[in-house]
Amino acid sequence: MIAAEGGTAVVDQLIVLLSVFLIASAVGTLVAKIGRFPYTIALLLAGLVVSIIVAVYDIGIVETLFVEELQLSHDLILLVLLPALLFEGAATTDLERLRRNLVPILTLAVPGLLVSVALLGFVGTYAFNFSLLVSLLFASMVLPTDPVSVLALFEELGAPDRLSVLVEGESLINDGVGVVVFSTLLALLVNGSTPASLLEPAKAAEVAAELVVVSLGGLVVGLVTGYAVYSVMVNLDEQMTEIVLTIVLAYGSFILAEHYLHVSGVIACVVAGLFIGNQGAEYAMSPRTKISVFNTWETAAFLVNTFIFIAIGVGTPIPQLVENWQLIVGGIVFVILARAAIVYPFTMLLNLRKHINIPLSYQHVMVWGGLHASIPIALVLGLQTEAPAGVPTAELKAMVFGIAAFSLVVQGLTMKKLLSRLGIVTRTQTEELYELLVGRARAVDAALDSAERLHASGDIPANVLDDFEAEYGREKEDLNEAISALLRDNPELRHEQLLMGERRVLQEEKSALMDATRSGVIASDVGERLMEEVDLKLDRVRSGESTARRDEEGYTESWRQQAAEFGLDADVRIDDDDREAQSGG
Amino acid sequence: MIAAEGGTAVVDQLIVLLSVFLIASAVGTLVAKIGRFPYTIALLLAGLVVSIIVAVYDIGIVETLFVEELQLSHDLILLVLLPALLFEGAATTDLERLRRNLVPILTLAVPGLLVSVALLGFVGTYAFNFSLLVSLLFASMVLPTDPVSVLALFEELGAPDRLSVLVEGESLINDGVGVVVFSTLLALLVNGSTPASLLEPAKAAEVAAELVVVSLGGLVVGLVTGYAVYSVMVNLDEQMTEIVLTIVLAYGSFILAEHYLHVSGVIACVVAGLFIGNQGAEYAMSPRTKISVFNTWETAAFLVNTFIFIAIGVGTPIPQLVENWQLIVGGIVFVILARAAIVYPFTMLLNLRKHINIPLSYQHVMVWGGLHASIPIALVLGLQTEAPAGVPTAELKAMVFGIAAFSLVVQGLTMKKLLSRLGIVTRTQTEELYELLVGRARAVDAALDSAERLHASGDIPANVLDDFEAEYGREKEDLNEAISALLRDNPELRHEQLLMGERRVLQEEKSALMDATRSGVIASDVGERLMEEVDLKLDRVRSGESTARRDEEGYTESWRQQAAEFGLDADVRIDDDDREAQSGG
Repeated sequence: MIAAEGGTAVVDQLIVLLSVFLIASAVGTLVAKIGRFPYTIALLLAGLVVSIIVAVYDIGIVETLFVEELQLSHDLILLVLLPALLFEGAATTDLERLRRNLVPILTLAVPGLLVSVALLGFVGTYAFNFSLLVSLLFASMVLPTDPVSVLALFEELGAPDRLSVLVEGESLINDGVGVVVFSTLLALLVNGSTPASLLEPAKAAEVAAELVVVSLGGLVVGLVTGYAVYSVMVNLDEQMTEIVLTIVLAYGSFILAEHYLHVSGVIACVVAGLFIGNQGAEYAMSPRTKISVFNTWETAAFLVNTFIFIAIGVGTPIPQLVENWQLIVGGIVFVILARAAIVYPFTMLLNLRKHINIPLSYQHVMVWGGLHASIPIALVLGLQTEAPAGVPTAELKAMVFGIAAFSLVVQGLTMKKLLSRLGIVTRTQTEELYELLVGRARAVDAALDSAERLHASGDIPANVLDDFEAEYGREKEDLNEAISALLRDNPELRHEQLLMGERRVLQEEKSALMDATRSGVIASDVGERLMEEVDLKLDRVRSGESTARRDEEGYTESWRQQAAEFGLDADVRIDDDDREAQSGG
Repeated sequence: MIAAEGGTAVVDQLIVLLSVFLIASAVGTLVAKIGRFPYTIALLLAGLVVSIIVAVYDIGIVETLFVEELQLSHDLILLVLLPALLFEGAATTDLERLRRNLVPILTLAVPGLLVSVALLGFVGTYAFNFSLLVSLLFASMVLPTDPVSVLALFEELGAPDRLSVLVEGESLINDGVGVVVFSTLLALLVNGSTPASLLEPAKAAEVAAELVVVSLGGLVVGLVTGYAVYSVMVNLDEQMTEIVLTIVLAYGSFILAEHYLHVSGVIACVVAGLFIGNQGAEYAMSPRTKISVFNTWETAAFLVNTFIFIAIGVGTPIPQLVENWQLIVGGIVFVILARAAIVYPFTMLLNLRKHINIPLSYQHVMVWGGLHASIPIALVLGLQTEAPAGVPTAELKAMVFGIAAFSLVVQGLTMKKLLSRLGIVTRTQTEELYELLVGRARAVDAALDSAERLHASGDIPANVLDDFEAEYGREKEDLNEAISALLRDNPELRHEQLLMGERRVLQEEKSALMDATRSGVIASDVGERLMEEVDLKLDRVRSGESTARRDEEGYTESWRQQAAEFGLDADVRIDDDDREAQSGG
């Protein structure tokens, strides 16, 4: 890439890259014409076609150009391509929404993944006739899920937000965990450890400790590098330099963690991305910078995905797949079963906590939407050179490529049908219009705010501001009218929006109570009691009842009761609160 | 880049690239703090510092990492980096303005360059003691001019448009001509032709014919590939695929011309860029696509420039420069003289045609602004391996790097002074007064804010605050009045300020929409649709139209239409033409 490699090397690489992008533009044009066929899957199919042509016919130039030059190496995927995808994925994830679903996401991504690796590893010794360590290695390699195609589909079809967050969050985190487990197992294999040694308490504790250190280390590196870049960006308003800084952060956090500190680079990169995409976007970027930074990463991720999916297609070793078809079919079945075996029981356990409540239809989507693509392929390619003798690398490669192709093409393409059969795609025309109106209203508010700020700082003169305000003010009024009319005509939409608003208000209430309890303003038992009430309301809201109409509420807040018991004039209702406060103060 | 190269190679390259970008972000942050110091020159100086450190001290790791890994090869510059810069430069050049100045640009870039090569080649045989062919080779290598830093400076200082077009147009075209001449001369050298053979009519005619064929061939390839991509893009509205198509066009036209058809890749790439950046942007891209495509190329060109300037600095062979200082000083002087010897006489001749009229002050800038950087360095690096025995490659390398460093640092940094001494920077008195007033208004605002803060924190008593407020309040009023009066009297200034304000307001709008989409308040397809509208407005603002007056606007926001279609009985106003369209459809 940097050093000179002789004339033809650079030219050849350029020609291959150009051919890939030429195929990609043909596929992109075709997909745009046909309509809703997933772009990534179309790329993969185009790559597979090239691979089949090479396998069946013997076209020298195609083989030389594509198959030899376009080899995805372990390093290329893991060091060059993956950080871009992980960073972009994390940076565009809303931390708040992630936090709200953190318990199910972490449960599935950490203990869930570990249990499924153990299960598939154990089953694999019988099903595939692997040794236990190899079988575990295979499981840790293949089980991390990949969000790319599923998310694109979700967006296109308008799947509910929460489902997207659950799937994307789990994928982001289990990638890191999977890589850590894989590396640990590979080290054991290379050191010639026997499967039995894993069962020794001392050895098991050592392995577990290592897992924890590597994961937490990655977390710390991500936070520290993220914060360092954040503090530079806070004092800077120069979009191009800020783009460069995010590039340095994405790859720097990864390399620093993986190469120098030997902790998890994947986790470091994801954490850094989450940090800069949320905290950073909010406090350290001007709107102009934000637009440029996110556009750049969106484009980069698109180009990387384009390359990766075609390369996976081209790199799929068709003859080896044909040869190992039994292993591959077995692998596909057991991987899906292993995923089902954690998704259903774990969410059942999670649903015991009332406020989590992941519906069964979501669970089906989470099982079937667990695609296995770039991470498994990167890991199995790394294995080809690193694995000690006795590891059946050829079989593993065939299995991983086969499972990846199946999950991307078959699971990916049937996702749409599954979603609509389960009745999950829920957005009505009314809701779409409502979102359109609300979105525009927000934009108008931002425009008005910014015009006022620009005027206050002397950047635009008063009469220009007047023009702006008249123009946007009129639009705002019209929007508000349209929104009111829409809500008036659609009581169920109004109800839904009311519930959503109430949920947020209640969450704020709860968070204020937590702060007050933590800082000692109120005693913890009092805090608990008050929070319990809020939880009660939250629960009602979740089950679709509004708490805003007092007369339908059917219960009295505990402070009213207690005030009455105390002999205060507890007959007071809303309007009387003020008087009470006045006479009391 | 694509093929596997073993673990450490990829990691090392990544680390070097990251170090380059780390230096770049430090330089970028510093430049942003200091203010008007050219970014590219700062990068070059940073690179030179690394190079000096390596030359003076013997720091093994720095040398290994930087000097060995960061070697700019001929192929890397010419095939990978240059097409991006040329394509971006061409795509952002306005064809209409270029056409209006086509005669002087072509005159200087084609016969002008050829004459100056002949002159410097002839002089060089005496001045540098080179053979005539080597001397001509040197001249053809070093004389093409580079627009990058000069243009950045022009923009920053507000130089007149026409001067920018003249300098940029000439640079874009003479790059192509220079490379063609260089390759022809190098072929003669490799074939062992004698200088005398150049004077034989048959041989001379052959060489001239070759020059014409190669140049026209490049032109045709650029037009054909540009038109091919254009006709795909006309029928497509899919921003990401269109970005991919422009990448394929930039590199594809270059490789097709240079590698397969053996005509000028530089000319092909420039022509393709001009075509797609003008015809393509106007008829084949939606506003949203246009913004994405140009943002992507702007970012790519920025990253490439960042890399190239640091790498030139690091790659400058300090010891060889010191050794050959006499040759370098001679080279610098004769290169400037050779440039002067064509700019003054040719423009004098051109000025005989009345409508051309290039003022003398522009001519000075064109002479002094002829910087020599990436093309000369790419060519001299290629020479290191390709030149036959007897060519003094070490001396040539030292001379080219020395001339490049001098022109970038000394000519680049003194440009500002030259422009203001020649009275070329066109900021009018009105603009200066406006800036003065706005600046003072900001200071007054800051003073008022701080007085209030000091009062609030108890540092100044209320009556002192009153005094302050009265005093500053009066000044503020006067300032506002003065600004209003100034804007009233200068409608074009008002228009300009309006556009600037609008651009920022629209960016805030877009950023608010991005936030709302990310946090799930609105679905991403709805967000896309709303952002598209903002992009449409941004595009209008960029082309100089205001969007603030709705009666001039002539279109309706999509939410109005959709609300009307939905049958909302809100008072949603729709422009008449839209209503017609609606009833029609």
